Amino acid sequence: MQPGQLSANILQKKSFLCVGLDSDIRKIPSHLLNSQDPVYEFNARIIEATADLAIAYKPNLAFYESLGPKGWETLKKTLELIPENIFTIADAKRGDIGNTSGMYARAFFEELGFDAITVAPYMGRDSVLPFLEYENHWVFLLALTSNAGAEDFQYHEMNGEPLYKKVISISGEWAREAKGNLGYVVGATRTEQMAEARALSPDSFFLVPGVGAQGGSLEGTLRAAGKNVIVNSSREILYASQGLDFAEKAREKAKEMVEKMNPFF
Amino acid sequence: MQPGQLSANILQKKSFLCVGLDSDIRKIPSHLLNSQDPVYEFNARIIEATADLAIAYKPNLAFYESLGPKGWETLKKTLELIPENIFTIADAKRGDIGNTSGMYARAFFEELGFDAITVAPYMGRDSVLPFLEYENHWVFLLALTSNAGAEDFQYHEMNGEPLYKKVISISGEWAREAKGNLGYVVGATRTEQMAEARALSPDSFFLVPGVGAQGGSLEGTLRAAGKNVIVNSSREILYASQGLDFAEKAREKAKEMVEKMNPFF
Repeated sequence: MQPGQLSANILQKKSFLCVGLDSDIRKIPSHLLNSQDPVYEFNARIIEATADLAIAYKPNLAFYESLGPKGWETLKKTLELIPENIFTIADAKRGDIGNTSGMYARAFFEELGFDAITVAPYMGRDSVLPFLEYENHWVFLLALTSNAGAEDFQYHEMNGEPLYKKVISISGEWAREAKGNLGYVVGATRTEQMAEARALSPDSFFLVPGVGAQGGSLEGTLRAAGKNVIVNSSREILYASQGLDFAEKAREKAKEMVEKMNPFF
Repeated sequence: MQPGQLSANILQKKSFLCVGLDSDIRKIPSHLLNSQDPVYEFNARIIEATADLAIAYKPNLAFYESLGPKGWETLKKTLELIPENIFTIADAKRGDIGNTSGMYARAFFEELGFDAITVAPYMGRDSVLPFLEYENHWVFLLALTSNAGAEDFQYHEMNGEPLYKKVISISGEWAREAKGNLGYVVGATRTEQMAEARALSPDSFFLVPGVGAQGGSLEGTLRAAGKNVIVNSSREILYASQGLDFAEKAREKAKEMVEKMNPFF
């Protein structure tokens, strides 16, 4: 997807909402378990119920991999369901030496056809560049994550500069020569640092997890991050109901979130 | 696999050799391409030719994922070929918030049945612990990798302590309460730092990539790291020949490496 298209979708829908497809076979409504591919059926209903509200979908790879080879089939079929004009993010947290990252880029951008992928920065430049070689594709590099463990290493400070800021400033240089687009994962649970991250990278897209189940604030996020932002919600939407009305309730929850976003347009 | 068993295998075979199954459909001998599952046929011949020399096999997930759902079938079938008493490592570089890492642990330890997995440390404690909850299973946490990009962040220094050392010392504390086993990835291209890593973690296993194609020294590695070490070689063994004799040549190359290891016993 072209960067302009993503921004246009956000403005048109007045929504920053990304629905995280962390679809867990142990949590989906039990009436789906008799179908041939319960997770696919679940995703199909969730996508149908939220496609006019969401500007992105973000399958979480772990949930599909835990089902074995069949899980990858489910993921592939799910992607085919998502309307062409809605952004797709593989939440995969990949990153390896150059030739291996190149294979991951093929897997996610070519074989599966995602628009974007989340990447871990620990292995540095040559682990990220292969993903950035794809025009009209996106990397969301982990900067400051929403979990408690973020504090173990991401704040490790050299000459007053914490690691997460160094990740943003150094990777920004890599992106300048790249064909693809670079954004960052910045957790909603850290709005103060989000403003600092935004100051370092005024124009990039932030992918923001942690609103809802993890306790992050939607308003705080939108105030700190501005309009180039994709706000993810997974569990709160997916599991809004365990009954026959699960898709309807998911839609209500998504709508409620988008209504809270509207004043920021 | 129990820790004692891994050490016993190393002593019995006088080998630290791990064969990295970075099996690339574009690089395997062309006569295999007519078979129904060329990568599986290739892996079967490589494993058959090296099983008495290797103490571990390490499939690189990217190479299987790049083939789509069929690649996961190939991986699963490949694992079934590896003799029970040989250690298996998923080179997957995973790591995410706790509930997601838990799903990855299920995928690799339960669904696929690996003994070990490589994990990226950037997201901290709760991203690693779910993997460490499995008894007789192993995490190899990225500490100092073999690629050029290792220098971007892994040497980022707080109060004189580079990030890679902090990863080792902090994660060592997590492992103390865990049922599983914790080792580290330390690249063969960095033997000076390997000795420092060893000083910080005298008893853990090091998984060492970077010997061979990436230029690391086998002798330097074994001198710095001692006997709790697993030395990976991928491309040099897998692609020793492009002809009908590829498995025979792979065996010769593996044997040559193991012979260089013998004096260290």
